[in-house]
Order: sequence, then structure tokens, then C-alpha cells
Amino acid sequence: MRKLKIAVCQMSVTENKEENLNKAEEMISKSVAEHGAEILVLPEMFNCPYANDFFPDFAEVYPGESTKRLSRLAKALGVYIVGGSIPEKDGDSIYNTSFIFGPEGQLLGRHRKMHLFDIDIEGGISFKESDTLGAGNQVTVIDTPIGRLGIAICYDMRFPELMCLMAEAGAEVIIIPAAFNMTTGPAHWDSLIKIRALDNQVYFVAASPARNLEAVYHAYGHSTIMDPWGNVVKRAGADEEIIYSELDLSYIYKIREQLPLLKHKRRDVYELRGLL
Amino acid sequence: MRKLKIAVCQMSVTENKEENLNKAEEMISKSVAEHGAEILVLPEMFNCPYANDFFPDFAEVYPGESTKRLSRLAKALGVYIVGGSIPEKDGDSIYNTSFIFGPEGQLLGRHRKMHLFDIDIEGGISFKESDTLGAGNQVTVIDTPIGRLGIAICYDMRFPELMCLMAEAGAEVIIIPAAFNMTTGPAHWDSLIKIRALDNQVYFVAASPARNLEAVYHAYGHSTIMDPWGNVVKRAGADEEIIYSELDLSYIYKIREQLPLLKHKRRDVYELRGLL
Repeated sequence: MRKLKIAVCQMSVTENKEENLNKAEEMISKSVAEHGAEILVLPEMFNCPYANDFFPDFAEVYPGESTKRLSRLAKALGVYIVGGSIPEKDGDSIYNTSFIFGPEGQLLGRHRKMHLFDIDIEGGISFKESDTLGAGNQVTVIDTPIGRLGIAICYDMRFPELMCLMAEAGAEVIIIPAAFNMTTGPAHWDSLIKIRALDNQVYFVAASPARNLEAVYHAYGHSTIMDPWGNVVKRAGADEEIIYSELDLSYIYKIREQLPLLKHKRRDVYELRGLL
Repeated sequence: MRKLKIAVCQMSVTENKEENLNKAEEMISKSVAEHGAEILVLPEMFNCPYANDFFPDFAEVYPGESTKRLSRLAKALGVYIVGGSIPEKDGDSIYNTSFIFGPEGQLLGRHRKMHLFDIDIEGGISFKESDTLGAGNQVTVIDTPIGRLGIAICYDMRFPELMCLMAEAGAEVIIIPAAFNMTTGPAHWDSLIKIRALDNQVYFVAASPARNLEAVYHAYGHSTIMDPWGNVVKRAGADEEIIYSELDLSYIYKIREQLPLLKHKRRDVYELRGLL
């Protein structure tokens, strides 16, 4: 039976990058020390306030201050770190990027947010990421000795095609650093996580920052670990908190046998494929 | 502003076909007389108990007893009828088929359930439709003067690819005659309906039979009309009941503007297409 000890660090993000990096390190270290976590997940934009005004100033070329710290930490602790996301500078572009490190400190992959969050809800949230950010083009599934991990970022999770492509590529755990807000969070967060886990027959892990009412952007919080039957394994509240679980990866295959959704897809009638 | 008056007839299904047809006719007539419904939706296997033992005996070649009655009724009342589904005989095969009739009594389309319900949940439901039924191969979207209707049946709704293909084909209202049970209903019904409506930015209408504890199969009930933001418009309980609503189709386009999910799909990165 393959088990995977995971911790999701729902950290509060401030306007001070150094403070954010220290907080991330502190929560990760605590999770490993107290719970033996093997894989640690940070939220979207964990080192930077979620606002277009901040992205250019906080952006780093890889390897940079934030990624070096995550790499060193992964190595020092011998763990996997899904480094939420940070603004990544590459040439003239900035991306919303998740860097994933292994227990030797090696970079296992990076996911650049593929779907940019450009929305304008009447009486609710307005945001236009594409004012400052570029979009990634890659489906990110990483094979590791502890399991096959699919990574995407926040708004990406609204696109069933991307989620299905990750499952088709063998993802067992889909991990989404995210920052839903006080419009979309209460309306959609819980059910989206549930159905993505269920449809794709994976553990689905969504990591939010804590809600900080002094920040420009009020994150919904409620980081969640969902099992492949669509049951909540763990769910945080709105405040700073770490949620832990030991995921039984064999349960994925039990569910896939009992409710064989992936097998029952009508691949003779429709085809979903990556183009790049 | 395009409005669409819809009624979902959550009828109780018995082992007597004639009784079932009478009940369907009665609920449809009542919906039109009392609420001016323009489109009427019946549940999956509305004329036949949901069990492999009954499908062959109840099966009809089109046009047959059940479809003729629906056609005549649509014409007499001048309405659209999504005739839930019935066991349809064609050559040596039986299909789980939804027949859709227009206000002249004309057949507008038929959807044969594309994904057969073969599941075996530990401590819960076991069912193997493929023991008696064949599978359809067609994505069903029907353009009518009252709106573009996507039709699929029950287990079909678990497959995001089919739902997305209906949205891509222009569906504004996705209608699912269904019969979830007491295992899958409480676990998945509400959230699935919500997320299918939200992902595809459509009204999503799921019609269940009433729960009949004397029947071999205990349907979950809870027929639901969901709006494209993922809010419940109407939801039935477990017993026999008709739910009504006037759907404002312009709301679909308002939501698609505010949260442009269909526009934001990365068609340069992934492609979903029908093969047949």
C-alpha cells in the first residue's frame, strides 16, 4: 500500500517578501518535524501579494532568491516541495509559476499558469492577470518515487480539459496552488474541488493563502484535500493553518475499479489531446 | 430577453407501462395547463422499471406505443417534450434512448445513452447495463426556436468530454434524464449538476424519477434546475413532484461575459473533438 504524507501550508501572505519566505520555511519545517510530511504544498503567489501592482517588483528570474530557498529547504529536509507559485521573470515576460523541488533539492518541473484570470463579475471581483502576466503552454505531470503529481494553478482548475489531460497522463494526485476570492470562493471552491477529484479519480489538493483582510486581495482560504470518491479528507478554515493527511494511493485504484470512469470514456467517440 | 418555461416531471415509475405513460401524460398536461410550460422533461426509463430484467420486455421499436403517445401529446399541447428515456429496440439491440419531440409532434432528435452504467461499489450499488443494452455514439444538440438543447442520459453526465462537446456545439440548456441511486445520489448528484452547469455555462436540468422504495431500484430523486453560475434554481425532494422555472437565456451570455470560461479555453494547447 503506497502512502503519501502531505501537508498544505495555508500561510498568510504579506507585502514583505522576506517575511513570506520565512513564513513558508517555518510552516514547512514544522510540518516535517511534527508530522513527517513528505510533500509540502504552498499557495499561489506565496511570496507576493496577489495584485498586478506587485508582480513586476516581486518577479525573479530562475534560479532566484525564492526558488533557491525552496531548493535548499527541500534538500535539507529530504522532502518534495510544490512551491505554490511566484511571479517568474523570463526575458520581458512574467509568469505565474509553480516550481517543484525534490529531496535532493533538484528542480523536478515548473508549471506556468496556463489560463489567465481575467474576470469581471458584477458586484464582485474584477481582475485582469493578462495586464502583467504571460501564459504557460504546458501540461505538468511529474513522475516521482512517491507518486505521479499533476500541477496546475488556480484558474487552471476551472478547465476540465486540462484536468482530464493530467489524469490521462497518469496523475494520481493533482495539486493546485490557488487563491480564490470572496466572490468565487463561497460560490464555487468546494464543489469544483470535489468534482475534479471525482471526475479524474485522483486525490485533489488545493492550497490557498490564509485570508488577510488587510491585503488588497481577500483570499477565500479553505485549502482542501479531497479523495477520489469526492469526500473531503481535510479542509482548512479561513485563517493561517496547516492541514495534514496520509494519502492512501491504493484507494485511487480501488475507486477506479468500482466506478470505472477513466475506463468508460468513449475514446472512439471523442478525443482530447494536447497539441504542444 | 429570451425566456423558456420549463417543467421537470419527477414521476414515480411502476412495473405497469400503461400506468407510467398515463402518469407522464397527466404530469405534462398539468404543467402546461397550470404553468404554461413550453418544454417538458421526463426522467430516465420513465416507462419501465430501471432494471435489466425489464428492459427487453418493455423495449419498443420506434415509432412505438410510448413514442407515439409523446409525439401526439407534444402536438396536442404545442410543446417540446424531452421524453426522458425508454428501452428502444433496434434490430437485435436495445438502447437507453431519449426521444425529443417538437410542437408539431415531429421527432427532433434521439439520444442513445453513450456511456453504459457498469459499476460495482463496495457496500453500495452494483449494476451492469451492458448486460442488456447497447451504447449510442452521438453527441446530441438540437437547435430549436426556443433554444439550443443538449441531451444526454444519466451516467453520460459523468464524462466532462461529452458535456464540453455539447457546450462547444452551442448548447444553452443541457437536459439529462437520469436515475442516480441511493449510493451515488447523496455522494455526487448535487455537485455534479452544479459543476457541469458552471463549467459549460449553461442551464443544467437533471430529471430523476421519484424514489419508490417498492421498486427494485431506489432512485435518488432531487431533480434539479441549475443556473450557469452554479446556483440552484429549483430542486425537488425525493417524492413525486413537478418543478417549474422560467429560464432567462440571456443570463447565460451575461455569465459568459463576466467569467469567460468558454472564451479562455486554451484551444492552442489542447483539443477536444468528436470523432464520429
